[in-house]
Amino acid sequence: MREILERVRAARPLIHNITNYVTVNDVANIVLACGGSPIMADDFEEVEDITSICAGLNINIGTLNRNTIPSMFRAGKKANELGHAVLLDPVGTGASRHRTETALSLVKEIHFDAIRGNSSEIRALAKGIGVMQEDGRMVGGGSTKGVDADAADVITEETLDAAVTFAKAFAGVTGGVIAITGTLDLVADVAQCYVIRNGRPEMGRITGTGCQLSGMATAFLAANRGNPCKAMAAAVCAMGLAGEIGWANMQPQDGNVTYRNRIIDAVYCMTGEQLEKGAKYEIR
Amino acid sequence: MREILERVRAARPLIHNITNYVTVNDVANIVLACGGSPIMADDFEEVEDITSICAGLNINIGTLNRNTIPSMFRAGKKANELGHAVLLDPVGTGASRHRTETALSLVKEIHFDAIRGNSSEIRALAKGIGVMQEDGRMVGGGSTKGVDADAADVITEETLDAAVTFAKAFAGVTGGVIAITGTLDLVADVAQCYVIRNGRPEMGRITGTGCQLSGMATAFLAANRGNPCKAMAAAVCAMGLAGEIGWANMQPQDGNVTYRNRIIDAVYCMTGEQLEKGAKYEIR
Amino acid sequence: MREILERVRAARPLIHNITNYVTVNDVANIVLACGGSPIMADDFEEVEDITSICAGLNINIGTLNRNTIPSMFRAGKKANELGHAVLLDPVGTGASRHRTETALSLVKEIHFDAIRGNSSEIRALAKGIGVMQEDGRMVGGGSTKGVDADAADVITEETLDAAVTFAKAFAGVTGGVIAITGTLDLVADVAQCYVIRNGRPEMGRITGTGCQLSGMATAFLAANRGNPCKAMAAAVCAMGLAGEIGWANMQPQDGNVTYRNRIIDAVYCMTGEQLEKGAKYEIR
Repeated sequence: MREILERVRAARPLIHNITNYVTVNDVANIVLACGGSPIMADDFEEVEDITSICAGLNINIGTLNRNTIPSMFRAGKKANELGHAVLLDPVGTGASRHRTETALSLVKEIHFDAIRGNSSEIRALAKGIGVMQEDGRMVGGGSTKGVDADAADVITEETLDAAVTFAKAFAGVTGGVIAITGTLDLVADVAQCYVIRNGRPEMGRITGTGCQLSGMATAFLAANRGNPCKAMAAAVCAMGLAGEIGWANMQPQDGNVTYRNRIIDAVYCMTGEQLEKGAKYEIR
Repeated sequence: MREILERVRAARPLIHNITNYVTVNDVANIVLACGGSPIMADDFEEVEDITSICAGLNINIGTLNRNTIPSMFRAGKKANELGHAVLLDPVGTGASRHRTETALSLVKEIHFDAIRGNSSEIRALAKGIGVMQEDGRMVGGGSTKGVDADAADVITEETLDAAVTFAKAFAGVTGGVIAITGTLDLVADVAQCYVIRNGRPEMGRITGTGCQLSGMATAFLAANRGNPCKAMAAAVCAMGLAGEIGWANMQPQDGNVTYRNRIIDAVYCMTGEQLEKGAKYEIR
Repeated sequence: MREILERVRAARPLIHNITNYVTVNDVANIVLACGGSPIMADDFEEVEDITSICAGLNINIGTLNRNTIPSMFRAGKKANELGHAVLLDPVGTGASRHRTETALSLVKEIHFDAIRGNSSEIRALAKGIGVMQEDGRMVGGGSTKGVDADAADVITEETLDAAVTFAKAFAGVTGGVIAITGTLDLVADVAQCYVIRNGRPEMGRITGTGCQLSGMATAFLAANRGNPCKAMAAAVCAMGLAGEIGWANMQPQDGNVTYRNRIIDAVYCMTGEQLEKGAKYEIR
């Protein structure tokens, strides 16, 4: 994993983020922390120009709206045309019809090098795509609870085998990498699936750790174009490892906001060697 | 107060926030810190769906705009229909005609279980409603200075009796709980008024402590539907107590941003017992 | 510099910010930290009312969009009419045609007491204005790399003389103060140029230190109407000094997010005397 991070630090890729206004500051700071350079721009009039000067595009539908949705499509198509790394974070897919339909349309019209969500979001997306393809086998029936994964969808050691099969199959359908993050993290393309065991459950008590990971992962993808699955896996390991390091630095009176700070700080301080040693994964 | 907080922790209510982009990240993190689960969504196309899966709705007009105002009305009406807890934070009411009129229309068209603002905002709202009702007695003549209370409106020990009477009367008019926060905090329904003396003046040097309180209070209301006045009072006590705990943890070089972090952290770490012991209030 | 800061603390100027949603929370907190009072409002219906009750207006185009652009013009004209301090932060000028054109139109239609940007943004702006004036001499040919200055544009000791001449000349064209910040900071009016050597290179690894400075500077300008060049220079020195103090407070595991917090905290704790002693500048 070492070389993946080191390439980000060397390339300093400029990342265009069309993202939500909730966690946008943390996303910008974690992109900087990992070695990238973020730019946030969502107006229809400028997204093509902005994405053209960047190396990667991160589309996050967390607070999608009538103005930003057309910008997502326009930027996504331009980034595809230019061969840039493009990632989708389908925040809250399944929580509203509008959100689900937007995510599905994005997946239909834009090629994503990677899609990263929690298990409910990814299942809701797969279900929708399954419907579109009239292919019942992959339907996961995700039941999104807002922006967090529903307990019923969480991947456990018991459901791991099925989840790995599902992730690979879904990756095959999208032609990109599928990352399903939670207690256990899966990062799959059609041929292989990283099963990652970094991270801490307390990360779920911070808003936007998923968004942060998506921003950072776009930088990892942009700086490692030849190996998207490993790049995505490295980003997931880095985020989880930062969660572990940040937690070890917690003081008795600290809570979720300080934990958020310590995680991004841990990414900032992380060396390639630290990531290499700290990454806990197997490939299936 | 103990059981109020413990019910939030047990219920983990999903809270729909239509709020400003200034303090939204802090609002999300404090909702998580107190035990709730936040979702921010403000597009007209999805607010009904989102509010339907939630237990509470927090409407904050801090950066209201042409897109989000119709969403506030739509979500509010849906939440009323479903019997969800609904709170209004009329940020900056009195600072612009547009803001005052929007707040007044919201109060006219939606039932709010609670309205929380500083003394200037609440007085500007009461004045507007008084005008609407042609009832001169309650007119408070608030003179909002931006988003902070004007010095002339601040509740002191000298003006407390009149303020308690005002708060109860205004609560009677709205049919919900009125929370006026500042140096002294009042939480009233038509029959009773909590006078709360938690908090620190330095909390006014942080952006968004009011917004944070409103987000947390919505979670408290949602998890304690039978007792909105006590739920709101508990949230106000919890915020003030967190301000005291956070201040006690301050180091010499710390300033307002670290203070913000320490306050949300203190909510995260707060036990029911701590709140029970630390809450300083009387009921009038 | 001491009296400049002390006047901000005494006047507590209310500052209207039409700014981006990425760094808005940090901007609000730094305005509070330096002694001002921030209000963020960008809806066309209310920006005139809001700016009327304020002492200064900070226009930042970081996430400009179809709704906020007309608000920037409307608020700017009103603030000009009222004789308020008005500052422009032309974030990312040069990164998209839309952004450059918007910044140029703002400069054409509104008088700015100060414009603050990095060297690429200011050069792109000067180039555009030069084109408008068909005056080739001042064309700087800035090549913006997203929201960060391009390496080719960075002011060094070698290029300092030329940069000072450029800054004064550009200030002469705009009739306001020009602040170009980076490794070396220049603050110029037509007659003089402060060359400032406060700050740390690591500030560039935090999102929004420029935006924060612009917010703080607007408060400095508003509270020191008679001396905009010195007010702007004091704000630049204060930001750089806070960067030095914040860095001295860093612990081994700290990263860019904690550094951001420590910088704003340092502004909060900064005394006039500290600024007087710590400010490193010469006037050319």
